[in-house]
Amino acid sequence: MTRANLTEQIRTKQNYLCVGLDTDPEKIPRFLKGLKDPVFEFNRRIIDATRAFCVSYKINTAFYEASGAAGWETMQKTVDYIPSTHFKIADAKRGDIGNTSAFYARAFFETLAFDAVTVAPYMGEDSIRPFLEYEGKWTILLGLTSNKGAGDFEMQGHASGLLYESVLRKGAAWGSPEKLMFVVGATQAGLFTHIRTITPDHFFLVPGVGAQGGSLQDISEKAMTKDIGLLVNASRAIIYAGSGEDFAEKAGVVASDYATEMAGYINKKAFIRR
Amino acid sequence: MTRANLTEQIRTKQNYLCVGLDTDPEKIPRFLKGLKDPVFEFNRRIIDATRAFCVSYKINTAFYEASGAAGWETMQKTVDYIPSTHFKIADAKRGDIGNTSAFYARAFFETLAFDAVTVAPYMGEDSIRPFLEYEGKWTILLGLTSNKGAGDFEMQGHASGLLYESVLRKGAAWGSPEKLMFVVGATQAGLFTHIRTITPDHFFLVPGVGAQGGSLQDISEKAMTKDIGLLVNASRAIIYAGSGEDFAEKAGVVASDYATEMAGYINKKAFIRR
Repeated sequence: MTRANLTEQIRTKQNYLCVGLDTDPEKIPRFLKGLKDPVFEFNRRIIDATRAFCVSYKINTAFYEASGAAGWETMQKTVDYIPSTHFKIADAKRGDIGNTSAFYARAFFETLAFDAVTVAPYMGEDSIRPFLEYEGKWTILLGLTSNKGAGDFEMQGHASGLLYESVLRKGAAWGSPEKLMFVVGATQAGLFTHIRTITPDHFFLVPGVGAQGGSLQDISEKAMTKDIGLLVNASRAIIYAGSGEDFAEKAGVVASDYATEMAGYINKKAFIRR
Repeated sequence: MTRANLTEQIRTKQNYLCVGLDTDPEKIPRFLKGLKDPVFEFNRRIIDATRAFCVSYKINTAFYEASGAAGWETMQKTVDYIPSTHFKIADAKRGDIGNTSAFYARAFFETLAFDAVTVAPYMGEDSIRPFLEYEGKWTILLGLTSNKGAGDFEMQGHASGLLYESVLRKGAAWGSPEKLMFVVGATQAGLFTHIRTITPDHFFLVPGVGAQGGSLQDISEKAMTKDIGLLVNASRAIIYAGSGEDFAEKAGVVASDYATEMAGYINKKAFIRR
């Protein structure tokens, strides 16, 4: 998916919501557990109920890998089920020497037809380059994450600034805003204005809204660009909104609420109004 | 596997060789390609031919994920086939917020019965903690990697030293030498003496010998501890030593050569002589 396609989706739907399919087999409603692939059945219903209110889905690979090969089968079925209108993210946080990263890129861009994959920066440019070589695919590089551990290395002094700033600068030099995004956690909202000065044009994938406590308003006011430039993810707050037979309906309501709130922020930016 | 068990394997076999099963489906000998699971058949023969000459196997998850769920099935069969005497490493380079890392730990330590998994440090302590919570399992944290990109962040100034030094210091504080190792690339041999001053007791997993050009002698002389403290990995140099029907035999010869060279370095350390 190109940046123009993604922006068009955002403009049409008036939201920049990404629904995170961090599906824990132990947390899905009991009535689904007798089915052949309960996680897929859960995801299918969540997708049906939320697709009108989001532009993207993010699959967290860890939750699927915990079930081994069967989990990868479920992941494959889920990504195939996501409508082609939606931006499909593998939240995989991969990264290795170039020879190996090329196989990860093949896994997520070819074998599983994701549009994007999250990548860790530690090993530097040649660990990221194989992902960037795919046309129409996106690399989403960890910038500043939402967790407490962001203080351990990311926010420590590095070169002429902090490590995450160095990652943003180098990452932006390696990949254009047409094929590279950054992960910037919602819990870091106080830094969004500053971060936009370093990377004014790149999309940010923003996790940490909802269960992790980040503020959608803060992020939107501080980091929105003229073509929005944001995908804000919520996972647990949406997919576990209910736990009964109406779980999908409840997920749809929460997604719709996020979408409505987002439309309000978008409407302050005249140039993208519908 | 405990450190005592691992060290006993090294003492008994007089080597610290890890064979890397980075099995590229396109590089396996033609005569295997008609079989049901050619990659597993390749791995099985490599394991049979090399098990007498190594103490560990390392499975590079990227090469399996490129084949999707079927690749995970092959990975499962391969790890099940590795003898229980050998230290089984998932070279997966995972790492995410704690909630997610817990699922990765489950994937590699429970669903697939690996002894160890490689983990990326960028997201800090809470991204690593869930792996450390498993008794008898090992976390192998990226320290200084073997690739060119190590210069981009790892070897840049950070806090009071370089980033990789900070990772070594903090990592050593988070995980004892009984359950944490570090990845230190063989191509960084010039720094091994220095790195040993920072982490004198932790095992190092050393990739980059062979195809990537690192020197086994340099590493061994500079980084060996009193209970060896090294697992040196070779992948391509061993598994692709031959390309015909005798590929496994040739792999065995190369592994045996590495093992013999290692025995020589071990014999300079009187306290672990057989």
